[in-house]
Amino acid sequence: MIRFHLITLFQDACDAYLNASIIERARKEKKIAVKYQNPRDFVAGKAGSYKKVDDKPYGGGPGMVMTALPVVRAVEKALKHVERSTSYIKKPVIIWFSPSGKQFTNRDADKLAKYSDIVLVCGRYEGIDERAKKILKTLANGSPARRVRVKEFAIGEAVYTGGEVPALAIVDAVTRRLPGVLGKDVSVEERRVASSAVYTRPETILYKGKKYRVPKVLQTGHHANIDKWRKES
Amino acid sequence: MIRFHLITLFQDACDAYLNASIIERARKEKKIAVKYQNPRDFVAGKAGSYKKVDDKPYGGGPGMVMTALPVVRAVEKALKHVERSTSYIKKPVIIWFSPSGKQFTNRDADKLAKYSDIVLVCGRYEGIDERAKKILKTLANGSPARRVRVKEFAIGEAVYTGGEVPALAIVDAVTRRLPGVLGKDVSVEERRVASSAVYTRPETILYKGKKYRVPKVLQTGHHANIDKWRKES
Repeated sequence: MIRFHLITLFQDACDAYLNASIIERARKEKKIAVKYQNPRDFVAGKAGSYKKVDDKPYGGGPGMVMTALPVVRAVEKALKHVERSTSYIKKPVIIWFSPSGKQFTNRDADKLAKYSDIVLVCGRYEGIDERAKKILKTLANGSPARRVRVKEFAIGEAVYTGGEVPALAIVDAVTRRLPGVLGKDVSVEERRVASSAVYTRPETILYKGKKYRVPKVLQTGHHANIDKWRKES
Repeated sequence: MIRFHLITLFQDACDAYLNASIIERARKEKKIAVKYQNPRDFVAGKAGSYKKVDDKPYGGGPGMVMTALPVVRAVEKALKHVERSTSYIKKPVIIWFSPSGKQFTNRDADKLAKYSDIVLVCGRYEGIDERAKKILKTLANGSPARRVRVKEFAIGEAVYTGGEVPALAIVDAVTRRLPGVLGKDVSVEERRVASSAVYTRPETILYKGKKYRVPKVLQTGHHANIDKWRKES
């Protein structure tokens, strides 16, 4: 089972998506688990008082920046059970989002699937104090000699309000590639071949007096030709 | 005001995200509106009976494919108020997601912001019957001579379970770039310059006996040097 840990101020916004459809089923079948830590819970201050997680950018500039330590503490909490583990079997990874990070691909999804715990650090506002990333790189897994890996990813090329959409994208892409999630006897790679232009019944659709037909090759039942057509289309 | 229309089987999964933080505020301030149409509501059949939105791939293959017409009807419903408009002021666009579509960028977000209605067609399973896209391209805006534009986009390079995450990414990226959403007097472009490595107080963080300091240049208050450093870092 893979445990995803979302470090986010917006648990409800994420969990609705992660409680639907294929991901919901994967959670119920214990193929994955989804946990949350809110940096706001790690801000010092009296209970009931407003916990501020952001502050002005150092050196001036627009917007607000998330402070480092509440984010670090939230990640530490997420990885507590890993740090305590003496077996070294648990292998965690921390994901940091940045427009200059590596573009996340299916290959990255397959690599992530080898970790026991995937911590997704979701920034908001203008970003997170860069020192949080520096400190996260010092976190150890079991012994100080075993550092927790920190990987930097980007999802697409546009800028988003926070790391939540990229985090949902990663949980989704990793989960659907786990064995048994999309169906027992079909590999993800096979599925990808089938996923160019797809058609289903009826054979002819009548819309505003015009007929839309399924391509002829699909009607032949000739599997070699169909595979060839799919690869080319 | 821009109206986003999500064509999706999973309204709740999307709306939780679109009802939080900056997007929630933009909706309350009527800078954007978010509407939903569920293809399942456009499947023929008795009320109360199970409405099937998918079927086996034509020509064989794994998984299920969403049928074309319920998706088309859902888009038609979303654009009903536009089709009825005789003023031609309303300018809708339909977004179709595909791994082979154009990578969505901030520039695309700015272009989309010029439309009155942005319809985001979210497929599930192995995809939507390709004929839906063909039919959507015939939809007219006011008169048959004025076709509604259909744009194909991809968000990042991984494959997701459905179009919902890409749709959330687009609503998010477009909304945050609308005037007044991120703050009145700060342009989005200025913000982007500030968004490489960001820091905030305190000046020195003590973590496990080690000190983490804000870069010296940020402490100088010398704005030209700070801007230069930010551009280079």
